[in-house]
Amino acid sequence: MAGNTFGNLFKITTFGESHGKAIGIVIDGCPSGLKINERFIQKELKRRRPGQSQITTQRNEDDKFEILSGVFNGKTTGTPLTMLIYNLDQHSSDYENIKLKYRPSHADYTYDIKYGIRDFRGGGRSSARETAARVLGGAIAKLFLKKYKISIEAYVSQVGNVSLDKDYTEIDLTQTEKNIVRCPDNETALKMISLIESVRNDGDTIGGTINCVIKNCPAGLGEPVFDKLQAQLARAMLSINAAKG
Amino acid sequence: MAGNTFGNLFKITTFGESHGKAIGIVIDGCPSGLKINERFIQKELKRRRPGQSQITTQRNEDDKFEILSGVFNGKTTGTPLTMLIYNLDQHSSDYENIKLKYRPSHADYTYDIKYGIRDFRGGGRSSARETAARVLGGAIAKLFLKKYKISIEAYVSQVGNVSLDKDYTEIDLTQTEKNIVRCPDNETALKMISLIESVRNDGDTIGGTINCVIKNCPAGLGEPVFDKLQAQLARAMLSINAAKG
Amino acid sequence: MAGNTFGNLFKITTFGESHGKAIGIVIDGCPSGLKINERFIQKELKRRRPGQSQITTQRNEDDKFEILSGVFNGKTTGTPLTMLIYNLDQHSSDYENIKLKYRPSHADYTYDIKYGIRDFRGGGRSSARETAARVLGGAIAKLFLKKYKISIEAYVSQVGNVSLDKDYTEIDLTQTEKNIVRCPDNETALKMISLIESVRNDGDTIGGTINCVIKNCPAGLGEPVFDKLQAQLARAMLSINAAKG
Amino acid sequence: MAGNTFGNLFKITTFGESHGKAIGIVIDGCPSGLKINERFIQKELKRRRPGQSQITTQRNEDDKFEILSGVFNGKTTGTPLTMLIYNLDQHSSDYENIKLKYRPSHADYTYDIKYGIRDFRGGGRSSARETAARVLGGAIAKLFLKKYKISIEAYVSQVGNVSLDKDYTEIDLTQTEKNIVRCPDNETALKMISLIESVRNDGDTIGGTINCVIKNCPAGLGEPVFDKLQAQLARAMLSINAAKG
Repeated sequence: MAGNTFGNLFKITTFGESHGKAIGIVIDGCPSGLKINERFIQKELKRRRPGQSQITTQRNEDDKFEILSGVFNGKTTGTPLTMLIYNLDQHSSDYENIKLKYRPSHADYTYDIKYGIRDFRGGGRSSARETAARVLGGAIAKLFLKKYKISIEAYVSQVGNVSLDKDYTEIDLTQTEKNIVRCPDNETALKMISLIESVRNDGDTIGGTINCVIKNCPAGLGEPVFDKLQAQLARAMLSINAAKG
Repeated sequence: MAGNTFGNLFKITTFGESHGKAIGIVIDGCPSGLKINERFIQKELKRRRPGQSQITTQRNEDDKFEILSGVFNGKTTGTPLTMLIYNLDQHSSDYENIKLKYRPSHADYTYDIKYGIRDFRGGGRSSARETAARVLGGAIAKLFLKKYKISIEAYVSQVGNVSLDKDYTEIDLTQTEKNIVRCPDNETALKMISLIESVRNDGDTIGGTINCVIKNCPAGLGEPVFDKLQAQLARAMLSINAAKG
Repeated sequence: MAGNTFGNLFKITTFGESHGKAIGIVIDGCPSGLKINERFIQKELKRRRPGQSQITTQRNEDDKFEILSGVFNGKTTGTPLTMLIYNLDQHSSDYENIKLKYRPSHADYTYDIKYGIRDFRGGGRSSARETAARVLGGAIAKLFLKKYKISIEAYVSQVGNVSLDKDYTEIDLTQTEKNIVRCPDNETALKMISLIESVRNDGDTIGGTINCVIKNCPAGLGEPVFDKLQAQLARAMLSINAAKG
Repeated sequence: MAGNTFGNLFKITTFGESHGKAIGIVIDGCPSGLKINERFIQKELKRRRPGQSQITTQRNEDDKFEILSGVFNGKTTGTPLTMLIYNLDQHSSDYENIKLKYRPSHADYTYDIKYGIRDFRGGGRSSARETAARVLGGAIAKLFLKKYKISIEAYVSQVGNVSLDKDYTEIDLTQTEKNIVRCPDNETALKMISLIESVRNDGDTIGGTINCVIKNCPAGLGEPVFDKLQAQLARAMLSINAAKG
């Protein structure tokens, strides 16, 4: 069955495996006449990129996106907007050794049971790399929402037992990108980084919490009863790898 | 836009306002040949009923359901299964006084902004009464899942700062219905009840946490990437009134 | 699987069997604030009613509809609009003799193969009676489209080899309801009726063609490429029993 | 709004403009473990290609497809199967002269009204070139259906007033590809070709009828009432450019 589509009016479909030829997204229903700022999209993509710091996964994914359809003379036309990122690193020799092993807490076992076949190279479709396609979709959505002055900003508010106990109104959100853990409060950020490094030295990982602030969101968005805004946001968030609550 | 439908193969659509003629559900895609145990459905409905104890809302909703379609000679036929609950209490004089007032933390304001019109009797469509229709759908789903020995059991694991800190494997789930707060550990249940009563005396309410245990769930349910099981469960849960996390 | 829903923004779900308790429709996404003219709806329902003339099926279905939800003080509220028609004639003794027989050109065999169970009373779900629920949905849609001066009028343009060879611009559409075959040209109508009667005397039936004229339809309705207006109309038309081209 | 997706379990989304970078398709829900015969897909694509004969459009589209995702070691994995065809001929200078003109019976005017912007190069999204993406989807579907010995074969049965008045059971369907008009009866085919050439000499075009024969189709496919097989086929067929009945 088909589960790679999200949304109704602005409908996204993502595709692609971690070590296949490419990953990408089709956005169907994007309003026409929207100016496509490619630098902004590239910047959003860069923010997602692993290997930016010592504290996260170290694979360097220097992603470049390409627009295949839906844009004419720099503007959307209302037809499906398709964007691709070619995977530079397709050699899967690194992954031969996991071919016969299921990694704990990964989807390897589930995929085998469900599909009877598994693209074992880097998690295939279940790799977190799939989120790069979502970032492309999110960047287009942000460009559209900007016209209505709606902003969406997220930050790390907790790592393990280190948490930022301020309300978002007391926080300077422009500071979020200033440190590698993306907590807008520098003091708390330093504590988080130090906790992550210590856990990492033990060969472990640690979870955290992300807060998201949406400004100028109009009243009445979402559709009762099953498509309430918070319900669809919860679905989207929990469809991200490793998101748990 | 339409948001009252959930699911794809087993697709439910709920309808009805708190003080309208009736609330109900259409289940489209329910497999044929399923025996309909009406007593079980009625029992599930009774479990939802408010006014069962001193600690919750006191409206007494003695709901009787009626099957309109989709069942023939006691079995489902594969056609849409429609169930109704007539609202006994339709007189809305009680609600005249809230006609012009928005209740805090209710959807009154949002509905007015979104629709420009509002059935102000008891919250109308935004009333928690809508969940009675979901219970009907859930009861049918449970009857179907029983054939595969899949069980779904929920219990209250936390109220305010009183929490049950045992793993579900250490808990006797048959005890859940034995007390009015539905915590399977009697000692913890008593503390929860006492906390609720004290908060209630202050004219306030208090939140809690529900745990749900699904047994015999086969591997591979749900569809990557946006229809993962946990993503759709999150959506369903957060579409319930007053559910927040 | 679920196939009883049609539409996206104005989404209808029909339910009910020919000789079950009731048939009905849930309209999800109907705009709020629409005045519900019950007399108009009842008139539309009456137009569908079989047994109106000597030339069609003779079962008399004096249908009365009932609104269960979605309307408050005579106007739609934007919540699901549910309408019911109770089946007066539920005694299925007439149908005992077809319990074990498949009627030619009916869905009896297909339903048995597909569902393994069949509500054999009058065709159950596959009865043309299901279209009464569609008429309710169509009546609401017409009320809404009237606000935009969009009209939808259909007439019989051909029966067997008798056809009305005029363009719709040369036809007085107000004459359509003046005769029992619903051809707006009286002379042609008489020929059609006489052909039907002669075929009927032979114990046979005969097919025909219906033309539909939509006025004031704005340019750009429908969505390329699979939801073009003509594509969705074709789907809707060919989902009607006995429609073949 | 989004209209470029068709299907539910085997869900296709097509994208791309006539003179954009590429056109393509995402197939979501294709069963895993299906062997991908690339030569068969290429052959299907070649059958669609215009410019194959003197009697149709003369643009030569020597299309090569490329698989981007969903296939691993020659088999489908159950993840979205994405296929691309790069457009070789993107220079739009030929189309500068139609920039300001609406071609009769094309979607030019409608697109301008609907989207306020138009990719005027070769019809953009409304070009018949979009069907190449459908052919890719159809080829995969055929590979899957072959496992169940279900075949789908179409042929031209009528051009203008020249028609093939034999039942499909009397026709040798292996002859369909033997002539350029694709009518399996050679004598009729010659008459059709001669009619097309004469119309073409007058600077006109002429319509026709296609018959399609599906063998080994199991009983019970499709879902009552709106997703009946014939209803969804009608929708699919009438979503093709220039299909009218």
